[in-house]
Amino acid sequence: MRRDVVTVSAPASLSNLGPGFDCLGVAISNFGDRIRARRQPGPEVTWEWHRSSVWSAPVRSEDNTAVVAARSMLRRLDIATGVHLEISKQGRAGSGLGSSAASAVAAALAVAALEGRELEKDVIREAALDGEQAASAARHGDNVLPSLYGGFVLAQSDRLEFSRRIDCPTRLHLAIILPDVDVLTREARGLLPREIPLDAAVRHASLLGMLVNAICCGNASDIGHLVMCDEIVEPKRAVLVTAYQDIRSSAVHAGAHGVALSGSGPAMFAVCPTSESASEVTRAMQHACAHRGMESIARTSSVDTSGARIDTETGQGGDWPW
Amino acid sequence: MRRDVVTVSAPASLSNLGPGFDCLGVAISNFGDRIRARRQPGPEVTWEWHRSSVWSAPVRSEDNTAVVAARSMLRRLDIATGVHLEISKQGRAGSGLGSSAASAVAAALAVAALEGRELEKDVIREAALDGEQAASAARHGDNVLPSLYGGFVLAQSDRLEFSRRIDCPTRLHLAIILPDVDVLTREARGLLPREIPLDAAVRHASLLGMLVNAICCGNASDIGHLVMCDEIVEPKRAVLVTAYQDIRSSAVHAGAHGVALSGSGPAMFAVCPTSESASEVTRAMQHACAHRGMESIARTSSVDTSGARIDTETGQGGDWPW
Repeated sequence: MRRDVVTVSAPASLSNLGPGFDCLGVAISNFGDRIRARRQPGPEVTWEWHRSSVWSAPVRSEDNTAVVAARSMLRRLDIATGVHLEISKQGRAGSGLGSSAASAVAAALAVAALEGRELEKDVIREAALDGEQAASAARHGDNVLPSLYGGFVLAQSDRLEFSRRIDCPTRLHLAIILPDVDVLTREARGLLPREIPLDAAVRHASLLGMLVNAICCGNASDIGHLVMCDEIVEPKRAVLVTAYQDIRSSAVHAGAHGVALSGSGPAMFAVCPTSESASEVTRAMQHACAHRGMESIARTSSVDTSGARIDTETGQGGDWPW
Repeated sequence: MRRDVVTVSAPASLSNLGPGFDCLGVAISNFGDRIRARRQPGPEVTWEWHRSSVWSAPVRSEDNTAVVAARSMLRRLDIATGVHLEISKQGRAGSGLGSSAASAVAAALAVAALEGRELEKDVIREAALDGEQAASAARHGDNVLPSLYGGFVLAQSDRLEFSRRIDCPTRLHLAIILPDVDVLTREARGLLPREIPLDAAVRHASLLGMLVNAICCGNASDIGHLVMCDEIVEPKRAVLVTAYQDIRSSAVHAGAHGVALSGSGPAMFAVCPTSESASEVTRAMQHACAHRGMESIARTSSVDTSGARIDTETGQGGDWPW
């Protein structure tokens, strides 16, 4: 069904989960993008922040993954008219929470939904990856795929057709903190070694295998333990987040099973045994930031298993619950 | 219950499963070791081949992992008397089927069972690893742990307490071939690169993650596909097995989901859709060997989920079904 206005959401995502560097991501609740899209006569894609947006610093259009993804989707569906996007962002760019991927996914879905083509997830994925590439110069699917499909996704950047959703049979209780420091993905990537010893690669792989097994078994304690076992990426990147050690210690001390950076940071997440514990860990991590004189956004969260979605049955908009 | 004679079995195992190099193994039916152990008065560990042994070429005592594991077990349990072992081997040393690990596990369990201490699996594991180390100069658990516990096991060689059994909810139909060529593990290891590019390591890890997920889901087709996806180890080692390409092609042509080397070869295994298909693939692989003028042992198999066991309730021996 063609529509003139549609409102869609796409969850944010944690990526680089422990030993899952560049391949394992998971969609999360309580962070993400919401976009209200409206047809407009010209061929342009324009945009503005919605008043509910937590993050609304100026972003140039060419850096906006939503705009790039929407243009790509229009082109892929061979649509001549333009679209106006009202974006509400519950996080911020450069957070490590897959914010640019959520924008790209939401925009691609919004354009598809305007045309009544929302079921073409493969096309939406490709358009969203075009958007993500504009932000990160890479077609890694480890944020885009969880944001689109929901749940945990193992993504192979050069062979996305191999990607698999991994179903976790239990509810995970997450605590997430977004400290107010900038980490440039490019700088974070520059810290990594180009080559690693074979035995380190084998250990890295086996830890990822164990993490996948723990997810399949729904073993939160093992998941928490294993996300802390990355020996290759996180030790190099931790230096970029001022309060890293304090946040990590405070989360573990408050009862988290484990805590790690998301993406290239500065966001960090903790896996907790219960929802009460997640609240406590959230407070502890935020307190650790405040103690270092650092602002932060912190919230409890869980795995979003739905992925990107049209927010109302009619697609005519509706409330903005955030 | 202390016993004077006991008969135990330990399954053989496939290891280095696709991208699971040095960490992922699985216990298999129809190949393995059986040991009848008898107390003897002196402090010696002696041994002979049982008449049912398929493999009975002379092996020096100091190379025999069963003898080393039995000695280690006697020492660990602080037992002064000796043991005589009658070994029946349904494979051969240097096969890639974890033959030395099966011997070590069976011997360690046999000594424990003579003392009525068969439930002390941690101690049995350590004694078996002592035996395995005598053969391979390493304490990799990827053959010992499946042989002891049964099923798929992800083993971390330097942190065995992290090892996890991975349960596969479906029955896998396997075809296994052991071509009559020698592959020296040391030579096979010497072919491997010492360092690999980070992006190759990430791909390797994500493929192992997918393989673990496929095992957890019981998806035989994905398992077969993924064991063929190792880009680091198998391409280097394939050159050591003369008929490798022919065996691989014939198995796939006969309907296998996938086929790969086990251990450092020469054994190869194929994952098949049905038991009939496994029979057909077994024949096809053996035919490929014969066509190259090469002898082979080939059998259908499945995952052994029991691991090492005492063969009769009384532990007094019994039939030798092999």
